[in-house]
Amino acid sequence: MLGIAYDGTDFSGWARQPGRRTVCGVIEDTLSMVLRHDVRLTVAGRTDAGVHASGQVAHTDVPAVPDLNRLARALPSDVRVHSISVAPPGFDARFSAVRRHYRYRLCDRQWSADPLRRNDTVTWPRLLDVPAMNEASARLVGLNDFVAFCRRREGATTIRDLQRLSWTRDGDVVTAHVSADAFCHSMVRSLVGALLAVGEGRKAAEWPGSLLTAGTRPSTITVAPAHGLTLTGVDYPPPDQLAARAEQTRNIREHL
Amino acid sequence: MLGIAYDGTDFSGWARQPGRRTVCGVIEDTLSMVLRHDVRLTVAGRTDAGVHASGQVAHTDVPAVPDLNRLARALPSDVRVHSISVAPPGFDARFSAVRRHYRYRLCDRQWSADPLRRNDTVTWPRLLDVPAMNEASARLVGLNDFVAFCRRREGATTIRDLQRLSWTRDGDVVTAHVSADAFCHSMVRSLVGALLAVGEGRKAAEWPGSLLTAGTRPSTITVAPAHGLTLTGVDYPPPDQLAARAEQTRNIREHL
Repeated sequence: MLGIAYDGTDFSGWARQPGRRTVCGVIEDTLSMVLRHDVRLTVAGRTDAGVHASGQVAHTDVPAVPDLNRLARALPSDVRVHSISVAPPGFDARFSAVRRHYRYRLCDRQWSADPLRRNDTVTWPRLLDVPAMNEASARLVGLNDFVAFCRRREGATTIRDLQRLSWTRDGDVVTAHVSADAFCHSMVRSLVGALLAVGEGRKAAEWPGSLLTAGTRPSTITVAPAHGLTLTGVDYPPPDQLAARAEQTRNIREHL
Repeated sequence: MLGIAYDGTDFSGWARQPGRRTVCGVIEDTLSMVLRHDVRLTVAGRTDAGVHASGQVAHTDVPAVPDLNRLARALPSDVRVHSISVAPPGFDARFSAVRRHYRYRLCDRQWSADPLRRNDTVTWPRLLDVPAMNEASARLVGLNDFVAFCRRREGATTIRDLQRLSWTRDGDVVTAHVSADAFCHSMVRSLVGALLAVGEGRKAAEWPGSLLTAGTRPSTITVAPAHGLTLTGVDYPPPDQLAARAEQTRNIREHL
């Protein structure tokens, strides 16, 4: 069970792809070298190219627990394994997870964007109305079919329990806090894209919520840029419920 | 009067150098292009290669105030001019300043260093004793001759009024807060270097203070790495005292 952080800027996302530098590829290769054992990781949240993580979780089966210091020296500086522990029986980083947390960070005054945070902060060219974005967000929270905000995959459910979607402003920095049991592909960035249209005044606060019943992804939703998004954490149930939760999730995700 | 922020990683410092990418060079060239007028900047704190700024201040004489948005679009993303205002009479960004503020940021657990903050955070391979560093820092505060912490320049005084030097810990992140009327070249990084020796237990808390009477820079002070350092702010007196302050500083710096 590994706790992982990365700056996604120079990665083609989490998932291994031939000939590309990916987070999974770099960590698996480094672990395999340090442990002299072939390592394959299962991850809680497969992030897209350019998306970051501060609280990513993965698991693997290995004969020994590697030393954190040694691993840190062997990894490139844009990825860190900040914790390693022996997982409880039944633990599956992906299927045992009960909740994922994301943050989306923007600066809505181009000239005041902090150059030291440009990798994880989107500069937005127009002022954002945060109260309106919060009003629109409240209409999306709950157990809903988010098909309008997902890239459809054959046979997979798009029903998700969106537990938190709220915005805060700190000076010129506007941040979305997003939590759900799980997310479909590009769901956070599609939600943010729809809410930015509200924040700019191009759409009414009712509009994003009205898409929940639309049945397809409307062409008016722009997927927000990847580099504002960071996976900040993953929640798991108590150890005695890990195996049951994994079983339950596998059934929902794979067979519905 | 310009408020400036930059990520110093890809700059050879503030000051113009032939054939090098410098912060001053990039801003002067961009302002000159936008205003169609030759611009030369006077800056509050000339920072070294790799040092960052969130609150740098500069001034220049120009026929018109450029638009912040237009300037932001013309500048590269690692430098921002976040404010422009007409300076009060007598204002000089360098000589009117009464106080400069710096931050020095470290992470003392290699494996937990945030990849998204690696540009402005030094990873330190050994645990730091922050209370000991604060005890040692308190002995350095005040009006002292910091010649032991400065690269000597012929004829220039090394007496400075160090008004704040304190350390805080937030998890694995250790931050120094340093304020003085002005700093000699490499003074903050030399102070930090000496205090890190205390934090590691290699030197007693009395040692950095004892160097104030040493008269020369001892070979045992290691200058801390540039990329942990950020100029966070510059203070100026009320408008009616700007000209007098500039006159006074010029006399002290140039003639003593």
